[in-house]
Amino acid sequence: NEPESGLPGFVGDTDPIMEKFNASITYDRRLWAADVRGSQAYAKALQTAGLVTGDEMKRLLGGLDTVYEEWSSGHFQIKAGDEDVHTANERRLKELIGEVAGKLHTGRSRNDQVVTDMRLWLRDAINTLKGNSLQLISTMVDRAAAEIDILFPGYTHMQRAQPIRWSHWILSHAVALRRDVEKLDETLRRVNVLPLGSGAIAGNPLAIDRELLRKELDFDTISINSMDATGQRDFVVEFLFWASMCLTHLSKMAEDLILYSTKEFSFIQLSDAYSTGSSLMPQKKNADSLELIRSKAGRVFGREDKEAMFDTYDTVDAVLQVATGVVSTLQVNRIAMEAALSPDMLATDLAYYLVRKGMPFREAHSCSGKVVFLAESKNIPLNQITLEHLQTVSPLFDADVSSVWDYGSSVEQYSAPGGTARSSINAQIENMRAWLKTHKQ
Amino acid sequence: NEPESGLPGFVGDTDPIMEKFNASITYDRRLWAADVRGSQAYAKALQTAGLVTGDEMKRLLGGLDTVYEEWSSGHFQIKAGDEDVHTANERRLKELIGEVAGKLHTGRSRNDQVVTDMRLWLRDAINTLKGNSLQLISTMVDRAAAEIDILFPGYTHMQRAQPIRWSHWILSHAVALRRDVEKLDETLRRVNVLPLGSGAIAGNPLAIDRELLRKELDFDTISINSMDATGQRDFVVEFLFWASMCLTHLSKMAEDLILYSTKEFSFIQLSDAYSTGSSLMPQKKNADSLELIRSKAGRVFGREDKEAMFDTYDTVDAVLQVATGVVSTLQVNRIAMEAALSPDMLATDLAYYLVRKGMPFREAHSCSGKVVFLAESKNIPLNQITLEHLQTVSPLFDADVSSVWDYGSSVEQYSAPGGTARSSINAQIENMRAWLKTHKQ
Amino acid sequence: NEPESGLPGFVGDTDPIMEKFNASITYDRRLWAADVRGSQAYAKALQTAGLVTGDEMKRLLGGLDTVYEEWSSGHFQIKAGDEDVHTANERRLKELIGEVAGKLHTGRSRNDQVVTDMRLWLRDAINTLKGNSLQLISTMVDRAAAEIDILFPGYTHMQRAQPIRWSHWILSHAVALRRDVEKLDETLRRVNVLPLGSGAIAGNPLAIDRELLRKELDFDTISINSMDATGQRDFVVEFLFWASMCLTHLSKMAEDLILYSTKEFSFIQLSDAYSTGSSLMPQKKNADSLELIRSKAGRVFGREDKEAMFDTYDTVDAVLQVATGVVSTLQVNRIAMEAALSPDMLATDLAYYLVRKGMPFREAHSCSGKVVFLAESKNIPLNQITLEHLQTVSPLFDADVSSVWDYGSSVEQYSAPGGTARSSINAQIENMRAWLKTHKQ
Amino acid sequence: NEPESGLPGFVGDTDPIMEKFNASITYDRRLWAADVRGSQAYAKALQTAGLVTGDEMKRLLGGLDTVYEEWSSGHFQIKAGDEDVHTANERRLKELIGEVAGKLHTGRSRNDQVVTDMRLWLRDAINTLKGNSLQLISTMVDRAAAEIDILFPGYTHMQRAQPIRWSHWILSHAVALRRDVEKLDETLRRVNVLPLGSGAIAGNPLAIDRELLRKELDFDTISINSMDATGQRDFVVEFLFWASMCLTHLSKMAEDLILYSTKEFSFIQLSDAYSTGSSLMPQKKNADSLELIRSKAGRVFGREDKEAMFDTYDTVDAVLQVATGVVSTLQVNRIAMEAALSPDMLATDLAYYLVRKGMPFREAHSCSGKVVFLAESKNIPLNQITLEHLQTVSPLFDADVSSVWDYGSSVEQYSAPGGTARSSINAQIENMRAWLKTHKQ
Repeated sequence: NEPESGLPGFVGDTDPIMEKFNASITYDRRLWAADVRGSQAYAKALQTAGLVTGDEMKRLLGGLDTVYEEWSSGHFQIKAGDEDVHTANERRLKELIGEVAGKLHTGRSRNDQVVTDMRLWLRDAINTLKGNSLQLISTMVDRAAAEIDILFPGYTHMQRAQPIRWSHWILSHAVALRRDVEKLDETLRRVNVLPLGSGAIAGNPLAIDRELLRKELDFDTISINSMDATGQRDFVVEFLFWASMCLTHLSKMAEDLILYSTKEFSFIQLSDAYSTGSSLMPQKKNADSLELIRSKAGRVFGREDKEAMFDTYDTVDAVLQVATGVVSTLQVNRIAMEAALSPDMLATDLAYYLVRKGMPFREAHSCSGKVVFLAESKNIPLNQITLEHLQTVSPLFDADVSSVWDYGSSVEQYSAPGGTARSSINAQIENMRAWLKTHKQ
Repeated sequence: NEPESGLPGFVGDTDPIMEKFNASITYDRRLWAADVRGSQAYAKALQTAGLVTGDEMKRLLGGLDTVYEEWSSGHFQIKAGDEDVHTANERRLKELIGEVAGKLHTGRSRNDQVVTDMRLWLRDAINTLKGNSLQLISTMVDRAAAEIDILFPGYTHMQRAQPIRWSHWILSHAVALRRDVEKLDETLRRVNVLPLGSGAIAGNPLAIDRELLRKELDFDTISINSMDATGQRDFVVEFLFWASMCLTHLSKMAEDLILYSTKEFSFIQLSDAYSTGSSLMPQKKNADSLELIRSKAGRVFGREDKEAMFDTYDTVDAVLQVATGVVSTLQVNRIAMEAALSPDMLATDLAYYLVRKGMPFREAHSCSGKVVFLAESKNIPLNQITLEHLQTVSPLFDADVSSVWDYGSSVEQYSAPGGTARSSINAQIENMRAWLKTHKQ
Repeated sequence: NEPESGLPGFVGDTDPIMEKFNASITYDRRLWAADVRGSQAYAKALQTAGLVTGDEMKRLLGGLDTVYEEWSSGHFQIKAGDEDVHTANERRLKELIGEVAGKLHTGRSRNDQVVTDMRLWLRDAINTLKGNSLQLISTMVDRAAAEIDILFPGYTHMQRAQPIRWSHWILSHAVALRRDVEKLDETLRRVNVLPLGSGAIAGNPLAIDRELLRKELDFDTISINSMDATGQRDFVVEFLFWASMCLTHLSKMAEDLILYSTKEFSFIQLSDAYSTGSSLMPQKKNADSLELIRSKAGRVFGREDKEAMFDTYDTVDAVLQVATGVVSTLQVNRIAMEAALSPDMLATDLAYYLVRKGMPFREAHSCSGKVVFLAESKNIPLNQITLEHLQTVSPLFDADVSSVWDYGSSVEQYSAPGGTARSSINAQIENMRAWLKTHKQ
Repeated sequence: NEPESGLPGFVGDTDPIMEKFNASITYDRRLWAADVRGSQAYAKALQTAGLVTGDEMKRLLGGLDTVYEEWSSGHFQIKAGDEDVHTANERRLKELIGEVAGKLHTGRSRNDQVVTDMRLWLRDAINTLKGNSLQLISTMVDRAAAEIDILFPGYTHMQRAQPIRWSHWILSHAVALRRDVEKLDETLRRVNVLPLGSGAIAGNPLAIDRELLRKELDFDTISINSMDATGQRDFVVEFLFWASMCLTHLSKMAEDLILYSTKEFSFIQLSDAYSTGSSLMPQKKNADSLELIRSKAGRVFGREDKEAMFDTYDTVDAVLQVATGVVSTLQVNRIAMEAALSPDMLATDLAYYLVRKGMPFREAHSCSGKVVFLAESKNIPLNQITLEHLQTVSPLFDADVSSVWDYGSSVEQYSAPGGTARSSINAQIENMRAWLKTHKQ
């Protein structure tokens, strides 16, 4: 159970370093609204159980309303000795309504109180993050739709691989974020479980109506076992994991964009609102927004559970918004993108050309590789190899091989679901839009 | 895409250290069955797409059947140069059926092939782990039902807190494992998605029927975007996270049991099958099984994705089975457990006694604390304080206070859902059994 | 290099979320003293290099003195737009002394400035932590010397293993902390390297005298390569690792003490100053100080480098002080400790008895094991087995076997260096005291 | 202490899953040579202590010689039941020389035996890694000396920052590796400490001469406290940390080289021996060696201590050799490197030009920024701005501004220690060579 100093039976004073070490009010004050709300529900349940009178309940509820107003108007005073937000609220309630405040904690322990507050808070936080994620995905899908005509190199291992649509790249990241939203919904179901009424460990001994508490606080279900309910923080760990997955996805996207924004690639340019300069070098424009997004994936949230929960929320909340800003304002340099397409990226197509003429793929791959080697030896682009030379590699090469050297035709081949052909991209956009519609809040 | 050496265009030999560094056959051979199965499905799709003839398809399927048999009978020969299981299978197929083997990879890339194999393998692995988990939970629930009469101290911060039922402790761990099974089902849904037909990055250019592939391989859905399908390993990361949560739960249970098995606690005794001795000290019996279970939670699986997947599976698989063995065979020392209950653990009940007489809880908590202090000063058990002395603390104390000093009555108070009262424990057992029934495989 | 907004060439405004995301003033303000000190040294070097006049230097130094006084008296005003402490100090300097402030950054970049400040700050922090560590070790050694007579069970795998001195246990932890201090000295040598004069990346182009900077700022050596000097944070990572090792050592000690303070062990009792109570259970005294110490080892410091550095320092600083408090005030229950010694812990001695009579150890170990089994079957303590029964196991047993059953004699056997015999413990204490003397600061 | 099954007192059979789970012979067999060596030293100490006769010692040493030969010739047979290498060696010794083998373990425990073997093994491993590291550094320094004339862009945030020498970049990485070697020497001192003679926990009770053991096994010092000696694995943790730092350094270098080897940068080309191709795309040459090096930094070694130690050694050993191969064989494209230098990278120099004419740096930075903006607006390179236009920004600009636009002169400004001027680079090379000479083995 949560520590509490100044209790009877304790003779010595607490070591002040230890006290400071132990205090959590600097960060758990963010639970203030959840704490008041949880206490109000508990006051009602106490009345139903006959542990406070109707009048006492009203005084408790009224006092808690005042506490709420003080917090929300910024007038709540934290005093020395308020080691956490729960102590602070209870102390203030007593100042406001006197001894009856002492009845509020009947049958409740700091254990079930704290975890109830955390679940209430996190439920709201998750809903905000879900909204931010959907906003970002929506921005990305719109951009994919608008810029479907732009081709550029798809990279693997940072080497040019195959021509793809720019929209294909955008959607590959949007799809990952969509999985994150789906997982967040699952996490939410496990967060939204009522622990109140579990006491410290053995349960609640005073016939508290937990179903009433559940309804009051709008939880989906009630915890099954009181030791598990007060002793585990799985729901926080699950949220932290969710955040690390989501940040990893955004980080990968940022990593690509940083590369694309180098002078050497010059595919995109960030809006000034998302760039910063250098104190020394006047010409520098750094993609700092992207570096921040990228760096957050490495961030580890291994601190006290509440602190980690708050810190993670703040980080993901900011990252999602900055990512939305970056994606919606960056400018694409279509000319540089298309200039980066080079004939050697069509070597796979050259192999498929032979496959279509009946050659087994492995052999076709080998023939195409020989043509690549030939072009390299001659130091000319792949599409400048003469038909004669091609025919020394395979007699299947014919005049129609010239049709291979067209990036537009190349991408249109990939029309199987998930591919980079226009029809396939359009299908992906439709799929994403339909999904977004089901998540309209 | 996956590396492959010995291709045309490459002049120099590969550095042998680098080659060894790169090879994965020592561990990815476990994918052999998935690889054959994936290739057979692809062979059928190639025939449907007109890329191989019916006869060629039959030769491919027959050859792959032979490869499968060689592996399953232990006769498959890995040769120098087989850098991974996919290369090995393709090499062997060619030996068996000749050049037509070269058609199998048409439109497929190592990228979509590998990830398909991993998903097929992991799907089976998850089903095994789910079965193991259910077996363990079932064992625990049965034990909770059988030993519902046994009381012992519930601990918080390793200090005696409140009397609880032994079954309550068991169920607190069973409930956590139940959440793990539920999460595993969610993970399975994201694992069971077909990536085949995504090529290296741009998609499949040869009109492959991905729906046919999905049905052949019994996947739930088809990946939406080919870059995402081949480039991400989220499903492995999610499985690793699942494993770390599950191992943490088992670790916590083991930690308690290690404590309970010390000479000083003497609550339980492990079966010899789960203990080991010392090379130096003849009297030692170590709870090595529990230490192994406990230590696995700290295990980090940060290796290459496939290696981590296999290693994690093996660990969780063994841990679940050992845990089932330990839990089903340990002996409970009911006498020691009940002897560890001490009157000071009823101090909360003493406060509730006053609450029931109308005192606000905070004041009652304080009065009970004073009684604890009184007993400590007199160096006598809490229940030996005379009524007269009690009344110096509060006039509300009366002769009926003697009823407080009964551990059996104490636990029966906690009858709210999730509590440690017999009725509440029985309800938890029912709940768990009903849930187990829905997961009968 | 460090980001800076509001530079020429930037047209758009920065996204405010991004700005907040980017700002570090909330935590890097702790570098204020280091920043002023570094700037003063740089001002002197600029004058030597002829880049500012003697008069300008005096104005710079005077202005910086004022900035220093404002910070140290708590009057420094942070303004909106001060994104970090370096910007804030430069802004304030300009307000105080006008345009000449603009000369201070000549040839310096934010990169070499920040890393210089961090190294100055960390150097002081390390010295403080070293002092705290020595204080704790000294407390432990004194306690080991004072309580050398107390015997208790040494545990392995949480099972009673062999009788040892309580001082032996204390020293085992003190020795680990001594290694930490030695490592901290090594880390300090790598922290205490001057990076100033490295510019952003290429070095300093204005003939700055780096040796003068080194002397002014009391660094041991000068960084060798400017890119390495500004681009790496190895010294922070090394400090974080040091902290995690040190916290792990304290955590292990705390883990043992938590166990020893359970009701079931009852070996030690914490001072009230290091215990806390429960909001629900009046009788509870939790070893919260120990739980805090234990938990910090799991803390991961994976945040922005500066934040991690500050956070780690605060944690280790508090933990060392609390640990010193706990160790110096805990009370030992010698009666309980010695009561926990049981004859089966002398089973190894029984084997040695046979070894001394000429039996090979492996056989002696086996014989002793048989005696243990005999005692268990008869349900009597090991030392109650009659000589006759012993002789059924081995004829080498004789009347003098009774001498084995003495815990005091048992520990005295372990007189080889490092063992638990009085002479050996005294030698360890001497060794530690001599070492402490060499570290008197 | 280490587990051992099959001991007296144990009635039930061990669960086979548990047994397999517990066995370490598959990886700890690598300790075979250390184990034999440690046992031979211990046999000598037993003879000195009078616990075995001279003849018995000779038989022990002779038997152990045979065990050694069997291992080194590949003929040692591991049998079912050999759970670890220590059990295997002892079993084999007994087969070879009979019952006297049972005397070898007198006063020794599995605890001090295992940790002695690990320290012996790791000492050799560290020496190998040190040699590999020095080889790599030496290769880098030679390359830096040979290619000192080549200039190319220094990058920060992946944006072009300032012109630097290619050698400057090489040395920045060599300097980091030098720190690693220095740290490795410190780690070695803590590894090279004798634990043998510590028994399980309490020490050695048989007057073993630990100084004799130290000399026999060539350790620097003797462990101070027996509990610490057998209970901690700090030396492994420290080695793992060292490895993660070293791999991070190599990873950063690899990251830069991957970027430099993209088609877009085209600064370097890897030897074919360090590249791989694609199963699908015939034109691909992937920098797989660099990707492998880069990826190893993320590798976490969180497994059982011995497994982690072996695995880490293998990884670092291979990475260092591959890195040496890559660095010594890569080809530099000097033309592309120098073509990537652009006048805007001299904007800092333009500011220094004004500083040299007396303008405060902050103002000069601002003026240079205006010129950059002017050039961008006019869409011309920075050095094409006319003097007239420059003078609209500041009247201090004069005809001699043309001297700024020379990359060679630019780098020569950075002559302060650590900078990129030729003299400074030469000094760094000298410094490194002198240091390498002191580490000649």
